[in-house]
Amino acid sequence: MMNEKAKKYVDLFRKVKIASAATVDQDGHPRSRIINVMIAAEEGMYIVTSKGKPFYEQLMNTGEIALSAMCPDCQSLKFCGKIKKVEKQWVDKVFQENPGMNEVYPGDTRYILDAFLIYEGSGEWFDLMHYPISRETFSYGTEEERAGFEITDECIGCGSCLRACPQKCIAQGEPWRIDPVHCLQCGACREVCPAGAVRKLHA
Amino acid sequence: MMNEKAKKYVDLFRKVKIASAATVDQDGHPRSRIINVMIAAEEGMYIVTSKGKPFYEQLMNTGEIALSAMCPDCQSLKFCGKIKKVEKQWVDKVFQENPGMNEVYPGDTRYILDAFLIYEGSGEWFDLMHYPISRETFSYGTEEERAGFEITDECIGCGSCLRACPQKCIAQGEPWRIDPVHCLQCGACREVCPAGAVRKLHA
Repeated sequence: MMNEKAKKYVDLFRKVKIASAATVDQDGHPRSRIINVMIAAEEGMYIVTSKGKPFYEQLMNTGEIALSAMCPDCQSLKFCGKIKKVEKQWVDKVFQENPGMNEVYPGDTRYILDAFLIYEGSGEWFDLMHYPISRETFSYGTEEERAGFEITDECIGCGSCLRACPQKCIAQGEPWRIDPVHCLQCGACREVCPAGAVRKLHA
Repeated sequence: MMNEKAKKYVDLFRKVKIASAATVDQDGHPRSRIINVMIAAEEGMYIVTSKGKPFYEQLMNTGEIALSAMCPDCQSLKFCGKIKKVEKQWVDKVFQENPGMNEVYPGDTRYILDAFLIYEGSGEWFDLMHYPISRETFSYGTEEERAGFEITDECIGCGSCLRACPQKCIAQGEPWRIDPVHCLQCGACREVCPAGAVRKLHA
């Protein structure tokens, strides 16, 4: 079962509908194309693609996909997760929920498509439009991913980090503290810290 | 120098401005996020990102990026190519052409960003909105990529391919011929050909 926060963002992907799907090809290169998020459900997001496409091969070979989408008002979504092919009946369900698909694949030609379920993954919503910027992470079937930076006990309280921060999202304290909701994750604080007290959270 | 067709689509990326950028991370997973195409020039497309971000690391480690973007009227762009970090003066040029960036990175905080040039790559414009669908490929600094299918001399002229084709973009002949401009690249023709005469064009 998906938690409410993840459901909210999965529903937002479906509402925006148009997303970019990234995969890795057989030679390890990044690939990207525009797709539609066809169904949002408790178990994840459904998409379709057809057997002749490199995209199909890449999904079958890697079982992985990354999505990003632009929402109204300059808010963006990104996501990466795992994907698997599901039963053919999902192609029919996709066409029921997206009748415009019949214009591209009329009649029985739809069955060259297969449906795929993105059954787990983690993502982030990001708002660059309002000051200060803000972000929220979500996930289903797996852990939320941590990214950005934190200030460790090595902090000497000099305030260099706050002066360098484009968003002024660092608060005084022992140690000083980065507000992860409003952090650009740009790394300026780490560059200037004389004590080496700013630690990267991702690998 | 970029040819006129490539220039048209590079300018379109810049005009749409909002694109998704795909990369491959250190563990080989696809990653994606929304970015802005900041400058379109004869030598390619410029973007910026900041040193603290996984995106930055991925660009530096792989030198590769894939873009996709949704244009007005349901026309989409996709692209994959090579990218390199360029001199800091390009950060200033980006801010000149995109003054809104000053709200996110005020004053000197901009210098945590680096500018990157996508100096070569190949892409495709795709129109799913008008029947029949249509597509056009382009590239700069490298060859255009071929994808989709073609019918070889093994063709026995039975017409199974045309009956299976969602877009009816196959013409009678010796051999029969797929119109690549209107082809969905779905592979339905290859599935049904009794003579094995339909050949995939990509690896």
